[in-house]
This record gives sequence, structure tokens and C-alpha cells, in this order.
Amino acid sequence: MKAIQLNNPEDPRSLALVETDTPKLRDGEVLVKVHAAGVNRGDLLQARGHYPPPPGASDIIGLECSGVIEDPGTTGRTIGEEVACLLAGGGYAEYVAVPEGQLMPIPEGYSLTEAASVVEAACTVWSNLGMLAGVQEGQTVLIHGGAGGIGTFAIQLCKQLGATVAVTAGSAEKLETCRELGADILINYREQDFSEELKGRCDVILDIIGAKYLRQNLRSLAADGQLIIIGLQGGVKTEINLGALLPRRLSVRGTTLRARSLAGKAEVVASTVEHVWPMLSDARITHHIHATLPLADAAKAHDLLDSGAVTGKIVLEV
Amino acid sequence: MKAIQLNNPEDPRSLALVETDTPKLRDGEVLVKVHAAGVNRGDLLQARGHYPPPPGASDIIGLECSGVIEDPGTTGRTIGEEVACLLAGGGYAEYVAVPEGQLMPIPEGYSLTEAASVVEAACTVWSNLGMLAGVQEGQTVLIHGGAGGIGTFAIQLCKQLGATVAVTAGSAEKLETCRELGADILINYREQDFSEELKGRCDVILDIIGAKYLRQNLRSLAADGQLIIIGLQGGVKTEINLGALLPRRLSVRGTTLRARSLAGKAEVVASTVEHVWPMLSDARITHHIHATLPLADAAKAHDLLDSGAVTGKIVLEV
Repeated sequence: MKAIQLNNPEDPRSLALVETDTPKLRDGEVLVKVHAAGVNRGDLLQARGHYPPPPGASDIIGLECSGVIEDPGTTGRTIGEEVACLLAGGGYAEYVAVPEGQLMPIPEGYSLTEAASVVEAACTVWSNLGMLAGVQEGQTVLIHGGAGGIGTFAIQLCKQLGATVAVTAGSAEKLETCRELGADILINYREQDFSEELKGRCDVILDIIGAKYLRQNLRSLAADGQLIIIGLQGGVKTEINLGALLPRRLSVRGTTLRARSLAGKAEVVASTVEHVWPMLSDARITHHIHATLPLADAAKAHDLLDSGAVTGKIVLEV
Repeated sequence: MKAIQLNNPEDPRSLALVETDTPKLRDGEVLVKVHAAGVNRGDLLQARGHYPPPPGASDIIGLECSGVIEDPGTTGRTIGEEVACLLAGGGYAEYVAVPEGQLMPIPEGYSLTEAASVVEAACTVWSNLGMLAGVQEGQTVLIHGGAGGIGTFAIQLCKQLGATVAVTAGSAEKLETCRELGADILINYREQDFSEELKGRCDVILDIIGAKYLRQNLRSLAADGQLIIIGLQGGVKTEINLGALLPRRLSVRGTTLRARSLAGKAEVVASTVEHVWPMLSDARITHHIHATLPLADAAKAHDLLDSGAVTGKIVLEV
């Protein structure tokens, strides 16, 4: 089969379409003929050598895809069934082996390409804000990077859950995108200290920055507030004042989807399909594809996402 | 009424029994004639000026007591009813005003003095390990300061919940006490690095140290592990490596009971009576009073607790 391969570990853009072996199925996996694969920030990190696949996963880049079941393996699935897939890796390829627990139906009314663009964001946002934080009506949620792939999804989900949504973004244009999706409090992080605006008000914060924002995030939390860190774009190490946690009973949690066990991923996938898929089908949550490129143009897709100018999703089509 | 007063803010042992006003009841409070008051580490901190009472609370020291209802105020309680009380302050006195939600029955078979010795530990341990962490059968729980008032209670509760219990303490004698209470893994922190012994194994850690142990605590946690910090005896500020949190989905939470709202305290008290009081009544959890002193000897009681030589509880009798 054809797949994207990193030719030179020193050059994160050396992504070439090469001939390689079709994956062999393990027990409980199906072989999916890939139609489209979503591009994620984790893919950029992996190309830079910073986000290695978990043990046993494909070393081909790609955390989500859609396609058609080519070989059901030992599962009871049907050849030709259309599926969306959460992947530990392997999406940038003609074929990928997927544990059955990570297969999702195509949301009603979605094309295969559209389906490939929502899996990772939906599972990440729901597992953190729905399953973990349990966001509820009347709460205030702060979403950093509101205009990104995770952010745009998170804004809409939180509005559906009845929360007040605050966002940070780096331009008036991006903040306008957030406002259109329902965000209530718009903060340009280049001009304002978000913790000044939100001091003591946030029940939940979904953070992609890490170290650089820790102090301000803690300052922004209300009593029983939860800081959930899913990205470390602003570094990993910093000072923490534990004295700030106790009186308000604050919690700091870090998560990644990719490192979860098979059972953990299956649980996230099932819960996401149950709770989020209906919101996609009736467009309570909308998606936005910024650009669709052929699989061979993976390097160009990474350039585009890295530019920071993207609002919405980039998808590679096989 | 008579109550303990800190005469000199510069001297934490200037605790004198003085004449002062009997507390006035607010709506929903009862007046309790105190029989006995438990001595807690928070009391020592308050005498040093480090743990001020929350707004609206008595500035008299004392976080738990037992006694008899003298005036039911606007509640439907009965004069003469024996109660144990969780307090935001005011226990070192002849009378204390207590919100009705913080009244508990005397555990079956307990004397009033014994009841005064278990309230704070029971509510602290249950609210953190039961309500918050949800400790379950088969999990491994690390309890720092296993031989202290919180530690001895936590060991027994965790064993009742079916957990494997690891403890740290500073002497072979204290570790033997922990072992007798059911602790499975005994670590002398003066001789061993607990994180070497427990690396990646703990589902829950109940910590009273804070900054000094943060790195080792995170190292000791298993996937989805929860670090719950309830004391800061080892300082408040330190470096945190957030990169350690994400792949294992670790959480760090700080809590205090005292800063909770009235509704929050009432919730903790009701849940503790429901889940823990039966374990006290049939002695699945036992208590140990190290010493009983008259109220006038509060300074001596603080000396004793500060000495670090105490295993079990110190109680002041009025």
C-alpha cells in the first residue's frame, strides 16, 4: 500500500508518499481502506519527533480517519461498512488496522471526508469536558485557542451543555469566529491578561498551553474549579503554588487520548457516539473544513496548520 | 462563658482560659454546651497565625467537639440532645454555635469524649478518599503520615474499602502502629525514597506534605492516579513538570474542609454519618485517644501534638 513516511528524522517536512506493507490484523482489529485522514497538531509534533506513537501502534502518522471496512478480521463487522476511526496512529495511508472499539458510525448527513475531520476533536473534547469535567448548565468554561480545531468544537459542545463560554485567541478575526460559534466572553491574549478578566470565575478550563498559563489558569478558577491540560504549547515546567489549590479545592489534571488503553479508548468512543453524534447529525454542532488536500501533500498540510492562520480543519484525501 | 484565647499573637502558646461572651445564634444554628474538643494540627497553625478562620466563623480555636444542645434556636432540635460537631472554629470553649448541618449523632457505643476525637478525621478522610477520590476495591492508596490522626483513620477506612494501603512514617514504632491498623506497605521516609518503592503503583495519594513531596508523589502515581493534598507541612511552592501529568492522566487536587460553604460542609457531614458512622459503631474503624487534658491546658496539648511523639488523638475536656 501507499503511505506517508518521514524520510529524514531531522526534517519534519520530509513527508513522502512511499510503498510500504499493508498492516497485519491483530485479534479484534478490522482493516479499513482509508478515504480521508484528519490532520492534527499531534501529527506535527510526531513529525518533529516529540510525540512518539504508544507501544504497539503504527509508526505512520495520523490519529483519525474515515473509510470502508476491507477485512473484518475476527470481528463480526461487514465488508464495505463505512466507518470513522479513532487511531493511535496510521491514518496517513491507504489502509489502517483499527481495534473494533475505535470504530464509529458516520454521523447522519456527513460525507466520509467530513467524518474524518471530527473524530479526534469530538473524542478529545467530550472525554475531557463531558466525561471527566462533567460540564453542567450554568457553569463557566474557559477554552484556550478557541478558534482551533479543538476550540471550535469545545465552544459548541459547551453551549449545548448550557455553559457560559469564555475563549482566548490571538486576533479579532479569530475571536469573531468564536463569537459566531456561541462564545460569550472573548479575550485577545495579545492584548489582555485573561486572568484579570476571569479571576475566580471559571469552573472548568480546557488548556493547550501548559506551563506558561498555569499561574493565570489557577487564578481564573472558581471554588472546585478544574484545570484540564491537554497540550503543552507553552512548555512543561513551571513553579506551582500549591497553597492556591487548597482553600478553593482546585484540581489540575493532564490528559491525552492517545496514551489510553484499548479499553479506555473504546469507552471514550462509545460515549462520544452516544452523546455527541446526535449533535452532529442535527447540526447543533457544526464542523468547518478549512482545506482538503491529497494525501501526497501531507507536508503542505502540515505547513498550513503550522502557519497558525487556519480556522477549522485540514483533511487529507486518499 | 469561659474559652481559650490567644493572649499574645507573637506567642502561639499564650493560650489562656478567659471569660468571654457566649456566642449569639444565627438562623439555623444551635447552641452546644461543649463536653470535649479535639485538638488538630490546624489549631496549632491558627495559634501561629497561619490558618485564620473563614469569614463569619468564631475566632476561638477548635475544629471539632461534642456536647449537648443547650438552645436549639430556630431548628427543630431538642434541648439535651447529645451531638458531635464539625466546626469552622470555636471548639475550645464552654459553648459553641453550630450550623444544624454540622451536627452528627454520637456513634453507637462512643462516649462524648471519644466522639469529639473522631469528627475532623472522619470528615476529612471520607470527603477526600470516599467522596472525592472514590477509593475502590483493588486500588492502591498511599497515606503520608500514616501514624497521625488523619493517617490512622485513613488506613482503616481504606482497608474497609478493599484497598491496598501504603504508608510513610518516621520511625519503626510508628510504622508498627500502621501495620497493626492494616497497612500493607510500610515506608520509613527517613531511610527510603517512597517513590522508589511505589513508582507508578498508586491510584490515590493522601498527602499532608505538599511542595517537598510533589515530584515523588507524581512519580508514585499509576495511570489515572489522583494526588490529593490536604496539608502543606513541606511548603507551598515548587516546580511542577506538567509533562508528567498528560500521558498517565494524573490529577493534583488540594482541599480543605474548613473553607467549604455551609452547604458543602453539611453534605460532607451527612455522607460521613451515612458511610463512616456504621464502621465506628461496630469497630471496623477504631479510634485511639493519646491523652485527655482539661481545657485550661490547651497550651500543653499543643506542645504535645507539636512534639511529633503522639500516635492518636489529644482531646480537651471542658
